[in-house]
Amino acid sequence: MSCFTGWGTGNRLMATLQEVCERLQRAGMPTSIDGDPSVNIERVNTLEDAGPSEISFLANPKYERCLKTTRAAAVILGEKVEVPPRLTVVRTPNPYAALRETILQLHGVRQHPSWNIHPMAVIAPGVRLGARPSIGPHVTIERDVHIGDDVVLYPGVYIGERCRLGDSVTLHPNVVLYEDTVLGHRVTIHAGSVVGEDGLGYAPANGDWLKIPQVGHVEIDDDAEIGSNCAIDRATLGRTWIGRGSKFSNLIAIGHGSKIGPSAMFVAQVGLAGSVNVGERVQMGGQVGVAGHLTIGDGARIGAKAGVLNDVDPGEYVLGQPAVKAAEARRAITLALKLPTLHQRIKSLEAEFERLREALQRRGTD
Amino acid sequence: MSCFTGWGTGNRLMATLQEVCERLQRAGMPTSIDGDPSVNIERVNTLEDAGPSEISFLANPKYERCLKTTRAAAVILGEKVEVPPRLTVVRTPNPYAALRETILQLHGVRQHPSWNIHPMAVIAPGVRLGARPSIGPHVTIERDVHIGDDVVLYPGVYIGERCRLGDSVTLHPNVVLYEDTVLGHRVTIHAGSVVGEDGLGYAPANGDWLKIPQVGHVEIDDDAEIGSNCAIDRATLGRTWIGRGSKFSNLIAIGHGSKIGPSAMFVAQVGLAGSVNVGERVQMGGQVGVAGHLTIGDGARIGAKAGVLNDVDPGEYVLGQPAVKAAEARRAITLALKLPTLHQRIKSLEAEFERLREALQRRGTD
Amino acid sequence: MSCFTGWGTGNRLMATLQEVCERLQRAGMPTSIDGDPSVNIERVNTLEDAGPSEISFLANPKYERCLKTTRAAAVILGEKVEVPPRLTVVRTPNPYAALRETILQLHGVRQHPSWNIHPMAVIAPGVRLGARPSIGPHVTIERDVHIGDDVVLYPGVYIGERCRLGDSVTLHPNVVLYEDTVLGHRVTIHAGSVVGEDGLGYAPANGDWLKIPQVGHVEIDDDAEIGSNCAIDRATLGRTWIGRGSKFSNLIAIGHGSKIGPSAMFVAQVGLAGSVNVGERVQMGGQVGVAGHLTIGDGARIGAKAGVLNDVDPGEYVLGQPAVKAAEARRAITLALKLPTLHQRIKSLEAEFERLREALQRRGTD
Repeated sequence: MSCFTGWGTGNRLMATLQEVCERLQRAGMPTSIDGDPSVNIERVNTLEDAGPSEISFLANPKYERCLKTTRAAAVILGEKVEVPPRLTVVRTPNPYAALRETILQLHGVRQHPSWNIHPMAVIAPGVRLGARPSIGPHVTIERDVHIGDDVVLYPGVYIGERCRLGDSVTLHPNVVLYEDTVLGHRVTIHAGSVVGEDGLGYAPANGDWLKIPQVGHVEIDDDAEIGSNCAIDRATLGRTWIGRGSKFSNLIAIGHGSKIGPSAMFVAQVGLAGSVNVGERVQMGGQVGVAGHLTIGDGARIGAKAGVLNDVDPGEYVLGQPAVKAAEARRAITLALKLPTLHQRIKSLEAEFERLREALQRRGTD
Repeated sequence: MSCFTGWGTGNRLMATLQEVCERLQRAGMPTSIDGDPSVNIERVNTLEDAGPSEISFLANPKYERCLKTTRAAAVILGEKVEVPPRLTVVRTPNPYAALRETILQLHGVRQHPSWNIHPMAVIAPGVRLGARPSIGPHVTIERDVHIGDDVVLYPGVYIGERCRLGDSVTLHPNVVLYEDTVLGHRVTIHAGSVVGEDGLGYAPANGDWLKIPQVGHVEIDDDAEIGSNCAIDRATLGRTWIGRGSKFSNLIAIGHGSKIGPSAMFVAQVGLAGSVNVGERVQMGGQVGVAGHLTIGDGARIGAKAGVLNDVDPGEYVLGQPAVKAAEARRAITLALKLPTLHQRIKSLEAEFERLREALQRRGTD
Repeated sequence: MSCFTGWGTGNRLMATLQEVCERLQRAGMPTSIDGDPSVNIERVNTLEDAGPSEISFLANPKYERCLKTTRAAAVILGEKVEVPPRLTVVRTPNPYAALRETILQLHGVRQHPSWNIHPMAVIAPGVRLGARPSIGPHVTIERDVHIGDDVVLYPGVYIGERCRLGDSVTLHPNVVLYEDTVLGHRVTIHAGSVVGEDGLGYAPANGDWLKIPQVGHVEIDDDAEIGSNCAIDRATLGRTWIGRGSKFSNLIAIGHGSKIGPSAMFVAQVGLAGSVNVGERVQMGGQVGVAGHLTIGDGARIGAKAGVLNDVDPGEYVLGQPAVKAAEARRAITLALKLPTLHQRIKSLEAEFERLREALQRRGTD
């Protein structure tokens, strides 16, 4: 099946292996070639799918077996990996970071369509646009929005009143920003995500639920990237905050008033209740849930599917439901799966104990 | 960082503390001021962020420590909370319900943009619109839709054929209603939610899946509010039903033919399989999952992340995976985390038992 | 409350029970009527809601009790089900598959609105459209997209550059395809789903996250159907792949480079990390999570909410967090809930053992 690369089309960015190596060196990565440096490389591809004009990489040892069968022209890999004879390799200490450079060299960066201001975009009075805007059809920008330079708004984007967008913001199709949302520079939000919807704030009243108007807003700082179909509640009061350089995958739900980052890394389907405080460089695995009003310390890691019911200390790694320190969780889980054996051992003890007591009684009455 | 409040802009709604107190009393809440009643209040904000022209509130005891450091002009709180000297407070029995009144007083209600019928909305023949419609650009309304008075349809909303919308319905940007969806009065649906897509109905046939056409529909009753990026399946036959006054957070999936409420309260990422019957005032925590064809009784509560595999009795509180009564679940979870200790105790018993038996044997053969 | 059927409106498709029976026989299903074959049937409905001109069905034994109270004109059911006297029934070995035929007979297939090419759709240069396109308002199709015959693109759909769509593809409102996405024939994607957004690929660098450009794409093969508000990542390199005839419910997240199917069946809120290989006819329950780089064998089944941390063998059925073979998981879960009893038994053993030892000591010192 043919392979589409998205970015390379139209402008071929071919390089020799020597040139690939030189770019990595310029980026500060010690690199050496074992093989013919003059071979032409057109694209980057997986070990499995790469053909003779493509370069591949090995970062996860799990795929080492693929080195035997790959048809790639060359493979970027670590310094000590053993390779089959005749395989051309580029050795560098951090092959995953090297991959980034080589993709940029051969595929360039994403070329967004260029709309200028499409006549089917609807822009309200009082909107201030920066230099070089690219605003697609079917976009709506409401009153009193201020937008920086070099912003890309894909079709179907909605920007509510009084939003503030920094420079080089990219909003993919059908992203919705409710009123008063603030985005820093270089924020990217993927298709279908919603920022600033009302949180679940209701006071119980005679069996009904009385809405607490959600008059806060959301702020997302510079260089954050948000995946597709996420939902980030506006705060009841004040702000919900996503710190600088935080990275979210898809289908993530953030409750009202939570404050996250900077440099958080959240895998898909994470859910935070309201008023959670998440420190710097916190990592959460897929489908993690965090209860309201908790504090997750700097550098903490939360394993996939964990259910966090208590504060997590800085640097700690927690797992399980409820989440506890990883070592403790692992011991408990291992033993839980051995429960049938433990149960059997208890039964044996009871039986043997009973036999012994009977034997002693018989002996006592002898 | 400056704070945007969304609703207060343009029309200042300042009040004195005395006026705040009087509004609460008019709403039937006994209220007293301890401090200067003439102070001017401009907005409501959190204890942490409030400045000297803002009022705050304390409903969750966890934040009592913030009373010492808040710069708020006054704090709404319960009757018995101890406060630092010189802090101006408004005492009332239910501070969370009072918060609602004070937000309404100082911030008003959300002012939707007013589009009348935007020329870039596409409205098919046979659509009946009520009085005072506000229909944004890029909206599509298909044939034979009937819509009540005072409806607000944000940009990008899609309304399929033969839908029925009551009065004062608000659909935020990019909400999609499939054909034949019925919404009561004052229903609000937040951005990106989808109502009426096909459920997962397939009959297995020779290793393939044969689609059962999903010819039912969805009905959502008066005063329900649905969060962002939810998905509510149409029924295979008949209807999927969300009862009056039910409140959903974001990213919730409801399977075909489920019937919920009235007055349900579902936190984000809840998932119900098909044909689940959920009673009145049922509360579900975040990421709860409920298997198909179950009945959840009136007033039941399901703890966050629970996996419900059996019917739940009215008024019951269940937790865990599989969900069982909360007390039972808590005992089991507590002991599961103590399994290493239990394991050690079994090992000790076995060893001591063995030593005892050997001692007895030696004695018996003495 | 009145019932809307969506497809039957406008063109009545009434049939006699005899005709219903004949259609099933023509479809290869042995069928017999017990009752009056001349009764007129207008629609299909649930046992609970059906009226005297409607036919219903029984496939799940759980609803057998409804046979006593249903007002349906007739009920399609299995060959051995006992029924109340005077209930007209249609007996056939597979009532669920029969349901499909009878719905098609009485309700027809979904009639999409017909837009031809709506003047408010925006189609870039270089787009190739097949025969009989139906393209709604507010659709955007970017450069160099190729589209087959009989395609239906609902309002708000976005199709990025160089996408390829086969014949009879249906994209419901606000579906987004990023650049280079490939869809086979008869692919259906429900409203709000996003295909081809960037995966979560970042290399750690000095406490920041360095983006790995995601230059792969997504391919979805013939006859796949994807629910609402899903998110399917493009591959970092190469492709993310959804095989022929796979069926997804709503709010499903698929990580970059995963390969699934053919004929997968995923319930709502399933999440796969990156580079997961899922075989043929694999079924996953709601809210299942699968860690990265795993292999799930052909025909495997993963129970709802399972957390899969290891490869799953073909045909295996796994449950739990972490997921293990179903029988093992069930034993462990059953015993986990009995932990208070096990704990009590350990305490009793310890106490009795202590009493016995004391008794023996006393006797030894007698």
